[in-house]
Amino acid sequence: MIELRKDPVTGRWVIISTERALRPADLRYDAAAPKDGPCCFCPGNEHTTPPEILAYRPHGSPRNGPGWSLRVVPNRFPALRVEGELQKEGVGMFDKMSGVGAHEVIIETPEHRASLAELPVKSTEDLLWAFRDRITDLERDSRLKYAMIFKNSGARAGATLDHPHCQLIALPVMCREVSDEIQGALHYYEFKERCVFCDMIKQEMSEDVRVVTRSSMHVAVAPFAARFPFESWVMPIRHSSRFELSDADEMKSAAEVLHGVLRRMSAVLDNPAYNFYLHTSPLRTPAMAHYHWHIEVLPAVTTVAGFERGSAFYINPVPPEEAAATMKKAGV
Amino acid sequence: MIELRKDPVTGRWVIISTERALRPADLRYDAAAPKDGPCCFCPGNEHTTPPEILAYRPHGSPRNGPGWSLRVVPNRFPALRVEGELQKEGVGMFDKMSGVGAHEVIIETPEHRASLAELPVKSTEDLLWAFRDRITDLERDSRLKYAMIFKNSGARAGATLDHPHCQLIALPVMCREVSDEIQGALHYYEFKERCVFCDMIKQEMSEDVRVVTRSSMHVAVAPFAARFPFESWVMPIRHSSRFELSDADEMKSAAEVLHGVLRRMSAVLDNPAYNFYLHTSPLRTPAMAHYHWHIEVLPAVTTVAGFERGSAFYINPVPPEEAAATMKKAGV
Repeated sequence: MIELRKDPVTGRWVIISTERALRPADLRYDAAAPKDGPCCFCPGNEHTTPPEILAYRPHGSPRNGPGWSLRVVPNRFPALRVEGELQKEGVGMFDKMSGVGAHEVIIETPEHRASLAELPVKSTEDLLWAFRDRITDLERDSRLKYAMIFKNSGARAGATLDHPHCQLIALPVMCREVSDEIQGALHYYEFKERCVFCDMIKQEMSEDVRVVTRSSMHVAVAPFAARFPFESWVMPIRHSSRFELSDADEMKSAAEVLHGVLRRMSAVLDNPAYNFYLHTSPLRTPAMAHYHWHIEVLPAVTTVAGFERGSAFYINPVPPEEAAATMKKAGV
Repeated sequence: MIELRKDPVTGRWVIISTERALRPADLRYDAAAPKDGPCCFCPGNEHTTPPEILAYRPHGSPRNGPGWSLRVVPNRFPALRVEGELQKEGVGMFDKMSGVGAHEVIIETPEHRASLAELPVKSTEDLLWAFRDRITDLERDSRLKYAMIFKNSGARAGATLDHPHCQLIALPVMCREVSDEIQGALHYYEFKERCVFCDMIKQEMSEDVRVVTRSSMHVAVAPFAARFPFESWVMPIRHSSRFELSDADEMKSAAEVLHGVLRRMSAVLDNPAYNFYLHTSPLRTPAMAHYHWHIEVLPAVTTVAGFERGSAFYINPVPPEEAAATMKKAGV
């Protein structure tokens, strides 16, 4: 069973996906494959994944063979399935939908034990290009509304495989977190006639107490109301609602800042487990004056428990000013 | 520093509380105190906690001494502080507020190694009475808007102490999760002139495929759009928006169902880590026709990772119909 169901109270959608229960859990996987590799994502094992959707490889090197520097494949244990029609159905008062969508794995590097923080900034840049390429491609599928790209790194952050990778889940409905952001940002815009992120960036760059690092066109800040210790947001300094419209210079600049955050976080917290995700506009949305794409980086150093789940309130023991100052210094 | 800060995009509040960083972490605490007790919550150690706020103890037994069956004390490492005035302030475009609130610990039993599931249902009933007593008392403090009562059981669910306990955090602002529920429920009510929870209960009890257990006046269901495997909601069958107005018969009936859920969950998942929390009306709110109090019980068996954080979408590998059937059987 793969289906989407809607909570009738809050409107929150969930994916009920029994196929995910079959995927190798941390321990079972680690028991089967040596910690140091090679694993199914390593060069030479291309045949163990479904055929590649995209790969960055030297001109002429054969598909689904070694030689690539980055590779995108369908997830073998998908949360959603790309085949089939999108069917919507009522079950008494409840609403459900067939589990149509895409679930892809972006293998960041051929090196099993590498990490984005240690690899040259070029790897981060390639990764952002892959995000752009996949969003642009998936945009053509009119069944899909949002492409959520995220990274789980380390078991504590939900990673089940060690080999560096990101994931992309494209959804046939909007996700609540981005909807809430867009609505909140629209509310601010209607009040002020300005983008809330642009205002935030302006204040942060002028106060300079929560800036973690910056490049020519991007900045990373520990947000004023950070939920987690050392949480950092990477944002374009100039207004832009769609990440995937970034040009080559912008991709390079964004990669520098994201890489800078990961490198500093790794130094300060001794290579912590972490998540990041890209918040950009929904697929096929025209440019919005009120929304601003960004990447949120969240080290997994605190436990989200009953209070956070029950209230959606967070308790953060490290003020973002301290986090930013520590991370800033780590880059010197 | 203890202060509340608001995210200018989504309106989500966070607590920045550096004092929490001082509290004993799982491992450090376990290293200091023997796993089997006695700990600071055990009888005989009453002097190691701040003075009790409430205790259920035989008539005449002295305060802050042994003899109690349930005891409520202030948290020694509070996320919020009960002293001081509620001051609200702008910081450029940002909003903050002094960290005024209450943070209490409800020690459920004198027995260090007990669990609600194993203890007689009377312990669960006493616990619900303590929830009621504390909410009723805190309601008199006009600075406070919401009392969130929750339980973290097991390290994986965020518990830092083994001795069975719940916590209460009373907040000077509404929490987003309950606001979202109330707003969603109001939206439904405006459309249908009926409470969404009442409709849900009616359908669940008539279909009987997601009912976990029931008593004379309460029912537990695995919700149609469950986020987590074996997630269960305890709800009064008859409409009621305020838990704290429950009478003695209702408290007994609610305790039977909550205890039944915990007992079944413990049997099916082999004593898992879990959270539960009470969602009731904000403090001092008149009865609402559209909202319905309930307790959400969430076993901590899956990892919330980048996708869930970035999208607020959840992937649940166990259909609630299966979870309910398994739990129902476990009670026979």
